[in-house]
Amino acid sequence: MRNVTWADRDVRACLAAVKRGKPFVYGLTNYVAANLSANVLLAVGAGPAIGAAPGWPSAFAAGAGAMWINAAALMSSGPETLIEAARSADAAGTPWVLDPVAMGAGAAAYDDIIRQLLGFHPTVIRGNASELIALAGGAGGGKGVETTAGSDEAIAFITDFAKATGSIIAVSGAVDYVTDGTDILAVPGGDVRLTQVTGAGCSLGALIAALLAANETKLIATCAAHAIYAVAAERAAGARGMGAFAAALVDELSLLDGEEK
Amino acid sequence: MRNVTWADRDVRACLAAVKRGKPFVYGLTNYVAANLSANVLLAVGAGPAIGAAPGWPSAFAAGAGAMWINAAALMSSGPETLIEAARSADAAGTPWVLDPVAMGAGAAAYDDIIRQLLGFHPTVIRGNASELIALAGGAGGGKGVETTAGSDEAIAFITDFAKATGSIIAVSGAVDYVTDGTDILAVPGGDVRLTQVTGAGCSLGALIAALLAANETKLIATCAAHAIYAVAAERAAGARGMGAFAAALVDELSLLDGEEK
Amino acid sequence: MRNVTWADRDVRACLAAVKRGKPFVYGLTNYVAANLSANVLLAVGAGPAIGAAPGWPSAFAAGAGAMWINAAALMSSGPETLIEAARSADAAGTPWVLDPVAMGAGAAAYDDIIRQLLGFHPTVIRGNASELIALAGGAGGGKGVETTAGSDEAIAFITDFAKATGSIIAVSGAVDYVTDGTDILAVPGGDVRLTQVTGAGCSLGALIAALLAANETKLIATCAAHAIYAVAAERAAGARGMGAFAAALVDELSLLDGEEK
Repeated sequence: MRNVTWADRDVRACLAAVKRGKPFVYGLTNYVAANLSANVLLAVGAGPAIGAAPGWPSAFAAGAGAMWINAAALMSSGPETLIEAARSADAAGTPWVLDPVAMGAGAAAYDDIIRQLLGFHPTVIRGNASELIALAGGAGGGKGVETTAGSDEAIAFITDFAKATGSIIAVSGAVDYVTDGTDILAVPGGDVRLTQVTGAGCSLGALIAALLAANETKLIATCAAHAIYAVAAERAAGARGMGAFAAALVDELSLLDGEEK
Repeated sequence: MRNVTWADRDVRACLAAVKRGKPFVYGLTNYVAANLSANVLLAVGAGPAIGAAPGWPSAFAAGAGAMWINAAALMSSGPETLIEAARSADAAGTPWVLDPVAMGAGAAAYDDIIRQLLGFHPTVIRGNASELIALAGGAGGGKGVETTAGSDEAIAFITDFAKATGSIIAVSGAVDYVTDGTDILAVPGGDVRLTQVTGAGCSLGALIAALLAANETKLIATCAAHAIYAVAAERAAGARGMGAFAAALVDELSLLDGEEK
Repeated sequence: MRNVTWADRDVRACLAAVKRGKPFVYGLTNYVAANLSANVLLAVGAGPAIGAAPGWPSAFAAGAGAMWINAAALMSSGPETLIEAARSADAAGTPWVLDPVAMGAGAAAYDDIIRQLLGFHPTVIRGNASELIALAGGAGGGKGVETTAGSDEAIAFITDFAKATGSIIAVSGAVDYVTDGTDILAVPGGDVRLTQVTGAGCSLGALIAALLAANETKLIATCAAHAIYAVAAERAAGARGMGAFAAALVDELSLLDGEEK
């Protein structure tokens, strides 16, 4: 299993492509994470639009460079809205990311809607181990939006799940793993405070979408998003506490230069 | 009337219990305050989930260690959703906090829904003086979400109101007062900027829920939340302006150690 | 064309009036920008309430000192809610700001609702060049919420549009322009990062409302909001990256004194 980090030329080239292309990236996400997700996208040079105002899901999913759906968008929009966006992206060939946040945490009606979204061929599915194991049919229920399983426990599940769905599967944890069912790559690093700032995981879904919008090779683009997030988090690690860390994360993302070592 | 502050061993023990127990705390709140509320909870070690995705209100209200309902959640969810969550918490014995934000500010339909929530036995009701006086049936209407009455004007009202409802009542102001109808405790300190950062009051409701989740003695747990918030605000007082203050408040909350003096 | 900046006594007097009057300002906006918008208002001394809880749109639009409607509020509320608020403000004589964010970006159903809001006589219409050109009937469609036209390209359009609507029209860009159809004023300055922090443009709509609430001369009040934002952004320009910039912008707004030079 190969490690992927910011030191890789490929990763930096993927970011440089976002900064050059300034892709329009559309998202349906929850209102807790929406602000940070938009700022993460702006920090790397993408142009975000978030939310399901009338006509946006079909028009923006079709017209965007990429899209992400965080399932907790269901706190603001009905299931039909998420399905409309997923269908529109799928039909238009817009790459899109599914984040099944809180999957398996005990709300069956919610979990069923996430399973329906799988039918629209997400390019990437990202989450923590509990969520992905639950989505893949295992018994991985978390505690609300927190995981109760380590990312290494999810490797077997996600490899099989990638084969079954045709999606790239990415699991976040102490080490992140990304697989297309054939290759599996590890992204080490980051900072534990990424799990202690609300919306940081959700915003990684947005960042993956930005990388997909600007790069053809989807597996490395997905790894690049994780590696970029990890290095920004490491550079933000000097922040005094959790409040300063969130702002510092966005700062460091905005200062990363695709050309630099 | 006894003062309660961070100097009290009981207060620090209450925080230590949250850090040890890492309770799952569920909230229905408004999207203006949701991000800060989640970060306040993460800062003290609790695990938040916010919002009314399908199935969440009943499942999470029953399964959480505690819950809070900020009435302005009605800007995203219908009354039946808030009532479902309150009913579920009440039936499951989940302690819960009611924050009647903007009660009495002029929207009768909104005020009526808050009065309905009273029927589900909130463990704690918290707000500013205008809101609580209005909820207790007095003429205390505020200006939007701002209070026009001082916290000391609310003492008689809240004591009677605690007796009538069986809830602990907590009023925020220059000095905070907390009563179960028999004992009344004062929590001094804090910083005026707590009223100048959006969602800071709302997030105190979330913090109270976290303290209730991890501690049996509800009156002291409620006081502890106020005292913890006050000391964090005082330590954040060196922030340059209101923007830095919000981040510094979360920083200081995340740095508080339940064991320290 | 005259330049208006923070150096103008009129601008500082407009801010001083907000700080003295502490107006209640009501807004319907999107949940991505809501938190920053509320903090911008609190920073200058106004008292915000945001969102469409039951009864709020009619009661608060009529009772507020001013109101703003950001069209992307449609991601949380139905068209009838925005129309109710606009009708109520118009009937009560409450000055109000319309921000047609993402107008012309490709969602016809959304654009139609914005055109309906024009019927309720907004005091000010603010946006970027793409949005305003699209709203004025030109071919100015942007890319999501980003503009693809410069503010100078909008001058002819906005002058005619001000005459046609009777509204003050304000376009944001490298230089901001504000016109009532007769006079046109330029507000230079600011910082490019105002376009790189989510909700910064949306929050300017809120700030204009605060200035309208406290000042009779609507054209200079609208210019003052732009000039205040510009000087705060310039003073925040030393921020390390985009995360720190957002907090620094609020800091600097909170530190501006209406009396100072």
